[in-house]
Amino acid sequence: MNKTQPRTLSGFMELLPNEQILFEQMKNTIEATYQQFGFLPIDTPIIELSEVLLAKAGGETEKQIYRFQKGDTDLSLRFDLTVPLAKYVAKNYGNLSFPFRRYQIGKVYRGERTQKGRFREFYQCDIDIIGDGELSILNDAELPSIIYTIFKKLGFEDFTIRINNRKLLNGLFEAIGQKENSTEILRIIDKIEKIGKEEVIKELEELDIETENITKILTFIEIEGTNQEKLKKLKDLQIENEEFSEGLKEITETLKYVGLFGVPEKNYKLDLTIARGLDYYTGTVYETFLNDYRELGSVCSGGRYENLADYYTDKKLPGVGISIGLTRLFYKLNELQLIKAEQKSISQLLIIPMLEELEKPIKLASELRNLNIKTEIYLSDKKLKTKMKYADKLQIPFIIVIGEDEIQNNKVKIKNMQTGEEIETDFDAEQIAKIIDNIE
Amino acid sequence: MNKTQPRTLSGFMELLPNEQILFEQMKNTIEATYQQFGFLPIDTPIIELSEVLLAKAGGETEKQIYRFQKGDTDLSLRFDLTVPLAKYVAKNYGNLSFPFRRYQIGKVYRGERTQKGRFREFYQCDIDIIGDGELSILNDAELPSIIYTIFKKLGFEDFTIRINNRKLLNGLFEAIGQKENSTEILRIIDKIEKIGKEEVIKELEELDIETENITKILTFIEIEGTNQEKLKKLKDLQIENEEFSEGLKEITETLKYVGLFGVPEKNYKLDLTIARGLDYYTGTVYETFLNDYRELGSVCSGGRYENLADYYTDKKLPGVGISIGLTRLFYKLNELQLIKAEQKSISQLLIIPMLEELEKPIKLASELRNLNIKTEIYLSDKKLKTKMKYADKLQIPFIIVIGEDEIQNNKVKIKNMQTGEEIETDFDAEQIAKIIDNIE
Repeated sequence: MNKTQPRTLSGFMELLPNEQILFEQMKNTIEATYQQFGFLPIDTPIIELSEVLLAKAGGETEKQIYRFQKGDTDLSLRFDLTVPLAKYVAKNYGNLSFPFRRYQIGKVYRGERTQKGRFREFYQCDIDIIGDGELSILNDAELPSIIYTIFKKLGFEDFTIRINNRKLLNGLFEAIGQKENSTEILRIIDKIEKIGKEEVIKELEELDIETENITKILTFIEIEGTNQEKLKKLKDLQIENEEFSEGLKEITETLKYVGLFGVPEKNYKLDLTIARGLDYYTGTVYETFLNDYRELGSVCSGGRYENLADYYTDKKLPGVGISIGLTRLFYKLNELQLIKAEQKSISQLLIIPMLEELEKPIKLASELRNLNIKTEIYLSDKKLKTKMKYADKLQIPFIIVIGEDEIQNNKVKIKNMQTGEEIETDFDAEQIAKIIDNIE
Repeated sequence: MNKTQPRTLSGFMELLPNEQILFEQMKNTIEATYQQFGFLPIDTPIIELSEVLLAKAGGETEKQIYRFQKGDTDLSLRFDLTVPLAKYVAKNYGNLSFPFRRYQIGKVYRGERTQKGRFREFYQCDIDIIGDGELSILNDAELPSIIYTIFKKLGFEDFTIRINNRKLLNGLFEAIGQKENSTEILRIIDKIEKIGKEEVIKELEELDIETENITKILTFIEIEGTNQEKLKKLKDLQIENEEFSEGLKEITETLKYVGLFGVPEKNYKLDLTIARGLDYYTGTVYETFLNDYRELGSVCSGGRYENLADYYTDKKLPGVGISIGLTRLFYKLNELQLIKAEQKSISQLLIIPMLEELEKPIKLASELRNLNIKTEIYLSDKKLKTKMKYADKLQIPFIIVIGEDEIQNNKVKIKNMQTGEEIETDFDAEQIAKIIDNIE
């Protein structure tokens, strides 16, 4: 028979079980934190009508989309979780309570050119808070505390949540008569870390912005100091339009409360350079960097938008949200060996029967499971050596070998596979469970 | 601006948050049980190369597949989790430990004709145990105990796991000289519950099977009695070919051990009529019925196959597995009102600040989260009535209103929203957490 080569598409992550265990742990940490802050789960389809999914999209996004016909229907795979959220909120408006706090963790699809560390299928872990008509700026201040909690739980210390407000930038552009260029300018500024100051100046010149105004833009994004000093310097710029004033008020309040929400000074800062390319965001924007690994780019980003779903509904639905691209994060952390897929088994205990009559070993396994010990029983008729090798390869923490002696004496030995230590105890599930719980 | 109507494709389940909470609970119950038995997680892509995914498929399956081109590549969405498992095991053979016990919970896609209760996107929750070259029949006996544990945990009592062995049927067909018709006969027998005995006879006659042999087939599938009685009657048939003998030996051993694995007599039985249509299965087969709701069909099915991945590899990889179609199960149970989406919030506690200075309420919320109380703080500047309405609508179990009085007296009242009861305590996270933990 001709064999098909078993292979997985490039740009699609497929992990070995030990890596998958670690991936699931990270995903669970993120989900548990979202729940800790009271966010509600939703789960939307991966396939949507193209007409619905692409109601707003265009340009780059559209090119990357997996789009196809099924029968007469024009379908697309979701490329993020934000458009499905917009659809969901517009569709279920009457059945939701606002502010609507939702989380969604799921796979999204982008047919990008394959390159190392870029994925065509990847998990996004999103939260958003959607207001009905209005949404307090305090929500913008709460999100960084969620980012902080997650990255702390994931084991990081030295990371910075960079916060900015697009209204400051827009106010500046208005002041220098460049409002119509603002999207373009934002896009350029956003790249300053990547392409450097000279290149930014060059690109701004290409937009026919006067040197004087380019200087103003650069002075603005180069404002230095503590958060308080930066806020003062912003005020001193004396930019007198409404958008700038609003931005200054919002960022001042946001920064004040981020601290109250428990994020230490060293883990957040006002960064006037970040704009989050997309013209989607209208107020607060966030990026998060692991300071020793800036090359990873932002590991958690997001921001405030004035209108979640204006292409579906007349209702004004302002929101603020963040997203973690977990697949890429996992890949990069693994590559940098900042995480290690050490755990190879889900089982805590392997019972190895070495006798004909399996009744008692099987019963013990069931009892231990009922006591919440993840228990596996080796069921194939193999030599002890083969069975031990299995336990060894999977690094199952504990094993109990049960032979005729153990049955007769009503005693078992729990072997700690890491230390080699053996603890003898009665052939009794409760006692065994207690011992295992105590060691772990 | 022209609005696009926000809608979801028919055949795609999209739940409201309260329903989603319940769905996640069921999914978590299934996953936790799989882990309790030591199964390892894997997660394969939803998109695969058509060549890989359809290496074996044909007929009905192929018609239902979401298949499309992206650039020059012929892609398909997975229609089950078994083919991806086969690919995974063949691809990663050298890196896995056998018996390989894996679980996978994920969405699969079938472009079926839409009808009520049928889904085009649905969750499958699968476990399989894959042997390298051979796999003990004891594994076939372990799976019903996992099915049993799950449906007990989901709150069901009166369900039956029906077990059969295809070798018995095949042995019978051999004995009556109908081996070449076996797939067709199995397909017909499998429908006896649905179409009735007369129709089965008619369809068998259409295969040109002699009346005498049709009688033998019917006698066989109508064997009645306890499991032990049925086994005896099977033996008394004195069918003398190897396949039948093997089947009898396997089913005898399987049934013996299912009991030892802790499944009560009333929850499993030998059912000689079930065959699981597909010619995929070669030995043990399972179906699970909620006895008061037979119309649901089987809620958990599976079986033994001789060769998981023969279209990818020469390695002999026998396996046994089960699958729960969670989306359909959820839909049907909900429709029958056997489950109720009562929980509307993830938060256990809502803190409602009624003052200017939010420092203390925010700090309290953070502390409570650290004590594992899922806590939300109402951040919009609204009247108390609006805030209370939000808590009410989401049925958040506890609320604490914090005004100037609470700050000054350093006391708070925890309101139990279900009973209306209020408990006064110090403005102290640990005391509050203890009270909430005690009530819940």
